[in-house]
Amino acid sequence: MDVAIAAADTAWVLAAMVAVAFMVPGLALFYGGMVSIRSTLNMMMMTIGAVAVMAVLWVLVGYSLTFGNSIGGVGLLGDPLEYLGLRGIMAEPETPGLPPALFAGFLLLFAGITVALVAGGVADRMRFSTWLVFAIVWPVLVFFPVAHWVFAFDSDDGSVTGGWIANNLGAIDLAGGTAIHINAGVATLALVLVLGRRAGFPTISRPHSVPLTFLGAGMLFAGWIGFNAGSAVAAGNTAAVAALNTVVAGLCGALAWMITEQVRAKHPTTLGVASGLVAGLVGITPAAAAVSPLGAIAIGLICGVVCHYAVGLKYRLGYDDSLDVAGLHMVAGIIGTLLIGVIADPASPVGEAGLLFGGGFGQLGAQTLATAAVLAYSFTVTLLIALVLDKTMGLRVTEEDELEGLDKAYHREMAYFQDGLEGDGLGTDAVVVAEEEESEAATASPPTSST
Amino acid sequence: MDVAIAAADTAWVLAAMVAVAFMVPGLALFYGGMVSIRSTLNMMMMTIGAVAVMAVLWVLVGYSLTFGNSIGGVGLLGDPLEYLGLRGIMAEPETPGLPPALFAGFLLLFAGITVALVAGGVADRMRFSTWLVFAIVWPVLVFFPVAHWVFAFDSDDGSVTGGWIANNLGAIDLAGGTAIHINAGVATLALVLVLGRRAGFPTISRPHSVPLTFLGAGMLFAGWIGFNAGSAVAAGNTAAVAALNTVVAGLCGALAWMITEQVRAKHPTTLGVASGLVAGLVGITPAAAAVSPLGAIAIGLICGVVCHYAVGLKYRLGYDDSLDVAGLHMVAGIIGTLLIGVIADPASPVGEAGLLFGGGFGQLGAQTLATAAVLAYSFTVTLLIALVLDKTMGLRVTEEDELEGLDKAYHREMAYFQDGLEGDGLGTDAVVVAEEEESEAATASPPTSST
Amino acid sequence: MDVAIAAADTAWVLAAMVAVAFMVPGLALFYGGMVSIRSTLNMMMMTIGAVAVMAVLWVLVGYSLTFGNSIGGVGLLGDPLEYLGLRGIMAEPETPGLPPALFAGFLLLFAGITVALVAGGVADRMRFSTWLVFAIVWPVLVFFPVAHWVFAFDSDDGSVTGGWIANNLGAIDLAGGTAIHINAGVATLALVLVLGRRAGFPTISRPHSVPLTFLGAGMLFAGWIGFNAGSAVAAGNTAAVAALNTVVAGLCGALAWMITEQVRAKHPTTLGVASGLVAGLVGITPAAAAVSPLGAIAIGLICGVVCHYAVGLKYRLGYDDSLDVAGLHMVAGIIGTLLIGVIADPASPVGEAGLLFGGGFGQLGAQTLATAAVLAYSFTVTLLIALVLDKTMGLRVTEEDELEGLDKAYHREMAYFQDGLEGDGLGTDAVVVAEEEESEAATASPPTSST
Repeated sequence: MDVAIAAADTAWVLAAMVAVAFMVPGLALFYGGMVSIRSTLNMMMMTIGAVAVMAVLWVLVGYSLTFGNSIGGVGLLGDPLEYLGLRGIMAEPETPGLPPALFAGFLLLFAGITVALVAGGVADRMRFSTWLVFAIVWPVLVFFPVAHWVFAFDSDDGSVTGGWIANNLGAIDLAGGTAIHINAGVATLALVLVLGRRAGFPTISRPHSVPLTFLGAGMLFAGWIGFNAGSAVAAGNTAAVAALNTVVAGLCGALAWMITEQVRAKHPTTLGVASGLVAGLVGITPAAAAVSPLGAIAIGLICGVVCHYAVGLKYRLGYDDSLDVAGLHMVAGIIGTLLIGVIADPASPVGEAGLLFGGGFGQLGAQTLATAAVLAYSFTVTLLIALVLDKTMGLRVTEEDELEGLDKAYHREMAYFQDGLEGDGLGTDAVVVAEEEESEAATASPPTSST
Repeated sequence: MDVAIAAADTAWVLAAMVAVAFMVPGLALFYGGMVSIRSTLNMMMMTIGAVAVMAVLWVLVGYSLTFGNSIGGVGLLGDPLEYLGLRGIMAEPETPGLPPALFAGFLLLFAGITVALVAGGVADRMRFSTWLVFAIVWPVLVFFPVAHWVFAFDSDDGSVTGGWIANNLGAIDLAGGTAIHINAGVATLALVLVLGRRAGFPTISRPHSVPLTFLGAGMLFAGWIGFNAGSAVAAGNTAAVAALNTVVAGLCGALAWMITEQVRAKHPTTLGVASGLVAGLVGITPAAAAVSPLGAIAIGLICGVVCHYAVGLKYRLGYDDSLDVAGLHMVAGIIGTLLIGVIADPASPVGEAGLLFGGGFGQLGAQTLATAAVLAYSFTVTLLIALVLDKTMGLRVTEEDELEGLDKAYHREMAYFQDGLEGDGLGTDAVVVAEEEESEAATASPPTSST
Repeated sequence: MDVAIAAADTAWVLAAMVAVAFMVPGLALFYGGMVSIRSTLNMMMMTIGAVAVMAVLWVLVGYSLTFGNSIGGVGLLGDPLEYLGLRGIMAEPETPGLPPALFAGFLLLFAGITVALVAGGVADRMRFSTWLVFAIVWPVLVFFPVAHWVFAFDSDDGSVTGGWIANNLGAIDLAGGTAIHINAGVATLALVLVLGRRAGFPTISRPHSVPLTFLGAGMLFAGWIGFNAGSAVAAGNTAAVAALNTVVAGLCGALAWMITEQVRAKHPTTLGVASGLVAGLVGITPAAAAVSPLGAIAIGLICGVVCHYAVGLKYRLGYDDSLDVAGLHMVAGIIGTLLIGVIADPASPVGEAGLLFGGGFGQLGAQTLATAAVLAYSFTVTLLIALVLDKTMGLRVTEEDELEGLDKAYHREMAYFQDGLEGDGLGTDAVVVAEEEESEAATASPPTSST
């Protein structure tokens, strides 16, 4: 590779890393706005806490377990010693290419966000200390292996062996439909089955701040361009198509959810639009470089509609996936991963043909197998982790703490302190003071509050 | 072009696309914070709704109407069939250059944001379903044609004909002073003339959250660097000058509005600073690569002062442009577009000389004609659209819904649910608990709230 | 340099400039959330006001004072006339390289943010007009000289002389540990000594919105990648290592503060995590390209623990650094700057060896001298500025204004106006309306609020 092209690729992946970093507060707000005012900070702390723990874990062994040479060459787990403590990571690449340190930094954020996604399911009732332990154990036993399967490619010269899904099975997954979204979604399902439902479920508390959730979704939307198009790890056509498709699918997810609510309940909601946006973004994650923009529209619309129904399943089936991690990430992740086998466009950068383009059942089979493997492995191992943590540290807060709210119980902090919030000693003319001249000239009555 | 330079340009435009994507939630918050707590979500929904509709519209015909070969070669509208459904968009460029998919994705966001800008004028009183229909009809009849005029350049080999303003008239408009800001601003004016004033106008409700508006303005500020400097579609000196000038002009707009408020009313406001920031950013949008940093200071200061007065006109003249879309975007758009004819600096990347640099009246004439054409076309056609929609679907919500607030009426949702907001069972020492030791050592009285 | 590599570097620095621009609203929210609801807007206004003033100042003389050829060749201050009004800044570089306009724009944001940092110390009690004058005087007398010392490098051909710390002393400071963080931190200390404590100190008001502060910290986190890795001004391995280390150190700062709170008070707080995040980011700022990821972990953890204790010193010693500018930025800036002399890794892009890597005391001496020089100069001159401003304009608001809150007194504006906030005429089933079918099918009781 030309050294100047390597520099251009580096420029884009650096920028994509910034974009993905915005997803960390984005996710915290997306979740934080949806919970009650008494557990807002706890939700934010679980999110940032998981990412912070990952920073240490990733440097020590996570990167090596994911991208180290496959132990025994069987494609199940990377060698933990190869990059222990990220040794050697600061070296320039031998041939022009992306600096290893950049790849490690970019993927560190992916890893942290994946764990943080799970936090949405356990809102309002999980012990904070147990959560942090989960944030260490789950990546080691579940995320790093699965990420190795999906993201670790064999080296061209055969000296390094990667994961079985990426290389042997040949499933297509650009940015983590399986390794991140299906994985985190089904893990959440396993965890909440052991954790149990919130007190009062299915009665749920209303989101304390929809604007916070909307803002979080918006930050996720913009950051997701870096997430998907950055996963091309090159500043070229693959990233370009992925960026376009990401935007299209996300917005179509929002549109579809909005329309579905309009049809079903006559009232499209902001919470629905934010959820649909995320559903569409999840759905396009594995497929962003494999389908056309029309395909991205299809994925977005399908995810928006299906996830709208999927998030209602918890009431029907009785599990409490509080903020719908499985309903959004697992479901849309499955949709996107499988649809590649159907609508992959041979004109796309990936160049595979799905069923509709005459591609046969081979790719669909690979996508299905990858999906099934991740679902089964992640669910099973996460269930075991949850059971062990429950018996040892305890997963669940006390009933008293849960009713009081976790912000007070765990953090002795409350999200807001707004004494004198409605203070109108100021008078309602304050904000329009600069217009007084004009408005007095134009109208009889001076501007005052309409309330 | 060198393939490595194409990669560098791709890297920058990808990053710029991320930046512009942040403007979507940015705009929603900027507007959402300024309305009352009873219509906050409706404002956010109008914003994201318009962008979501654009995702489908742009892929289907919008890109083609804007950038297709001009129908009949007359420079008025692109061929809707050429890129129907964005066909062919995933192909690598034949000669090294920006991937077409990236250009399409970047401009999709521009298109969506332009429509969303209009939402600010109709706050609190427009039917949501009619708004979504407007978000389909208006781009087809107004935005795509005007964007074709301004943004579609003839190809070098003469095989593709672009728009008349860009090619025949030769007006300078880097990132959409005419096609976006004047266009959206004057369209808002036409729409609100048909829609009518809010109940109780000129009595207006106070912004429910100035921090939300400030945050939105801040996100617009940062994203706007991508908007303007990304419009250079290359990682070179043009983008560099545009980025510098964008930051300078935006901040000078904020400064000028602040000073004007101080002089007029002795109280500079945050709302004023946020408005001035946007005014300066709008003003520099067409001019960012054509003027010097001193010119950017001039544009920023002039926009800040003039727009401060312009937003008061609605009280004098009696139209209700609720969140001042015309007062900011139309007015600052006109200022920036015309000032190019006066202060364009031959040392700038564009290299034209304005009047002050001995450039004659030619460029100023072109800028004026472009401004007048967009004003006249957009106002007229938007007025017709508004009249037709009013007679058919109805533009206006019921009086009852308006008084109750649109969040409840249209979305059965409220922005906040903050039960127990002031809860101080917690005690005021909570947040300073970690300091107890020190403060006890240092002072007699323990930390308690000052209120 | 190759023209294509210059384009790639330009692409990255443009993207980094966008990232750093997000730090402006980020800082305003980080600070704004921590103050009471009666001074929220004033805090935001001080932040953006300082940055806006810098836009004019930087274009006129700031850039030239910082990066102009050193007056008399002694390395103390740049020639104010060389780039007066940023003349010549729009020229393409003579040999391929970063466009000067981009460097000027990027550093403008650094300069503005540095001044804005100081605002956190003087919360709730400084006259707004005096603050704006401080935002002009302080940069001219303190920031521009110190930035010249640290950031202005001699040209390779010897035609341009830079600052004494960068060239003669050879201290390592990638992105401003000395010039920005130590500088702003110690200046805050000097300013608050003259300004005095808030009424009622050490009784302090609780943060009015922790989510706002958390969001601000999150935006700082993501933007800081651009801040540090952008300071490499090239899209290569130096930026890559800096980006990785920035993320790691920031998150480790958050983790360390959280653990320290858990150990000391059994309650890790969100405010602590946000503070720890910033502490870690500050600490890695000078060192990001000079240490390994393990070194970044060390810096993050040490800054998180030490700053946690340092912010309590104000209660013990009785000065009122309201939002802990000295406690975070000065302290973590010193830690990071000095630790370079200890843990600089010869395998890092900078390539120096600290004490632990057998590097001797030379580098540590240089780091110490740079730290001491900036501490002494900035403290002394800032103290003089503060005394002069206090005697002339007055630093302090009236007691009446302070008790009433600065938003009302100075801006005639309040942050929030949330009439009918808890309005539940809507009923608690509103947000779950779309689920009614399912939940009715699944459970006996319909969803209602848990409160």
